[in-house]
Amino acid sequence: MKKIINNPSNVIQDMVKGMTLANDGQWVQVENTNVIRRKELSQGKVGLVSGGGSGHEPAHAGYVGKGMLDAAVVGEVFTSPTPDQIFEAIKAVDQGKGVLLIVKNYTGDVLNFEMAGELAEAEGIRVEQVIVNDDIAVKDSDFTIGRRGIAGTVFVHKAAGAKAEQGASLDEVKAAAEKTIEQVRSMGMALTSCTVPDAGKPSFHLDEDEMEIGIGIHGEAGTERKKIASAKEIADELTSNIIEDAGLAAGDEVAVMINGMGSTPEMELFIVNGHVNDMLKEKQISVHQTYVGEYMTSLEMAGFSITLLKVDEELKQLLAEPSEAIAFKEDI
Amino acid sequence: MKKIINNPSNVIQDMVKGMTLANDGQWVQVENTNVIRRKELSQGKVGLVSGGGSGHEPAHAGYVGKGMLDAAVVGEVFTSPTPDQIFEAIKAVDQGKGVLLIVKNYTGDVLNFEMAGELAEAEGIRVEQVIVNDDIAVKDSDFTIGRRGIAGTVFVHKAAGAKAEQGASLDEVKAAAEKTIEQVRSMGMALTSCTVPDAGKPSFHLDEDEMEIGIGIHGEAGTERKKIASAKEIADELTSNIIEDAGLAAGDEVAVMINGMGSTPEMELFIVNGHVNDMLKEKQISVHQTYVGEYMTSLEMAGFSITLLKVDEELKQLLAEPSEAIAFKEDI
Repeated sequence: MKKIINNPSNVIQDMVKGMTLANDGQWVQVENTNVIRRKELSQGKVGLVSGGGSGHEPAHAGYVGKGMLDAAVVGEVFTSPTPDQIFEAIKAVDQGKGVLLIVKNYTGDVLNFEMAGELAEAEGIRVEQVIVNDDIAVKDSDFTIGRRGIAGTVFVHKAAGAKAEQGASLDEVKAAAEKTIEQVRSMGMALTSCTVPDAGKPSFHLDEDEMEIGIGIHGEAGTERKKIASAKEIADELTSNIIEDAGLAAGDEVAVMINGMGSTPEMELFIVNGHVNDMLKEKQISVHQTYVGEYMTSLEMAGFSITLLKVDEELKQLLAEPSEAIAFKEDI
Repeated sequence: MKKIINNPSNVIQDMVKGMTLANDGQWVQVENTNVIRRKELSQGKVGLVSGGGSGHEPAHAGYVGKGMLDAAVVGEVFTSPTPDQIFEAIKAVDQGKGVLLIVKNYTGDVLNFEMAGELAEAEGIRVEQVIVNDDIAVKDSDFTIGRRGIAGTVFVHKAAGAKAEQGASLDEVKAAAEKTIEQVRSMGMALTSCTVPDAGKPSFHLDEDEMEIGIGIHGEAGTERKKIASAKEIADELTSNIIEDAGLAAGDEVAVMINGMGSTPEMELFIVNGHVNDMLKEKQISVHQTYVGEYMTSLEMAGFSITLLKVDEELKQLLAEPSEAIAFKEDI
């Protein structure tokens, strides 16, 4: 296993320490937890918490900042954070207007966030939860009942974050998050596996000429394992699947995210973007905004996902609001 | 070779197309070239051009934007752009106040940028050039006489870009760039090789338990090949080398960049950051600002570099100026 780490059992502790020292003190670690919080919360707004297993960096700590999340709970690698950690995050961001939890659809995450919400409600904090399930690849998976939550989650952070920053109520912020979830679809593929530090060996194996379509961000099985195709063929397959699933039609407008899984050169992501754009043009679907980079990774897995978010005036306006989150800065 | 591409010979053409369709039209392609230019130039300022071989994305196109570069010239993978392409970039950004070329120290780049500068001067455009040589690992290398230019180049883009945006003269912008070059030092390491698409096989080989210290961003030989050490040991070795070379001492202040080479999970970069910070603290060198991410990659090479920039009031102020460049956004 080739990794730049110390003890494989301490990677989270070491990472969280390094995080809090980065980015000019924009992040603070909530004492005795693996919760990364905004140093300064905006006064009197609804709190926003997300998180999950680590190994998906910059998700979710990279989205902690003014205009997006207030806190991210950092679990062990590919492992849901515990309810007590999530509860600490809720307490650390509640200002009396309630807290929204944005959860990717994995059974462990959903249960633990739910349990943390109940603990908080018992202490008089109002908590609501939304479940992101943007991955159209498979109906159920090893870790999920229903569709998995992947890179589309970042758009949910952005829309809900902007709404909360505007001073909206918990119900309004939740509605913005749910609308985004309703409109966002993703699908991914991989060329290689990744290695969880504590496991010490690759999670799965793909031959030198193989790829897997529809793979999850923890290497969960996808829809098909086959010979590597060209960038155009892969992009066309994923994009047309998403367009069909989302029921996108001529005249619709979308935000596009081409997300690298960890070790895919940006060069390849840009090549994919060209092909996605071609297909959207052909279908007369217009592109409002395009994001190309690493937003939701799987350690050092090679591969990418495509996310399309159907936007209307409200979502366009929420995407355009300023964000100071290090991994998703929007100009003020 | 596992890559998401079409024809290996067309990767640059395909990438540049995908770039110009990303980021909301912030970039335009100068017609019939592989030059990426800011869509709107700031009126009447000194022009700033950088570039080099591709495969280092987001360098350099990611630094094209208000407050940083005006244009980036995109060469073939790990291959200097030709003088005529650089000349086109110069013409595309000159507004009568002259143009500064920021060049990483590789023999091909230096010669080609110089030649392009001469072509431009012959047409009455004033051109100056600075050479970045921040890599302390080796004195000369396969492609370089003198030290190589690596991730520290991004700080040069930032300082010169901020200065130009303030309306400074070509001489003043060049002076800011040269001051940054004087104060910046880097050193890198790798766990794996990378594969140039047109070559189709890895550039070099490292055994499963080996790493190379002091490696260049094209896989050029470093100072030592040895058994993988812990994150702390590696970070300590690189950091202490840089501190010594730069003559940094107690009371000095630095900006820190922990740069991923392509397939290093952000988790590992943050772990490294913690150790770099520890050593700086121990030496009583204070940290002004920390950047952790992928700034100057080598395709899918696993590894990282550490850059330290000694800052004074002027450099701190230039770093703090707004930047709209997609890969280095600073809040306005």
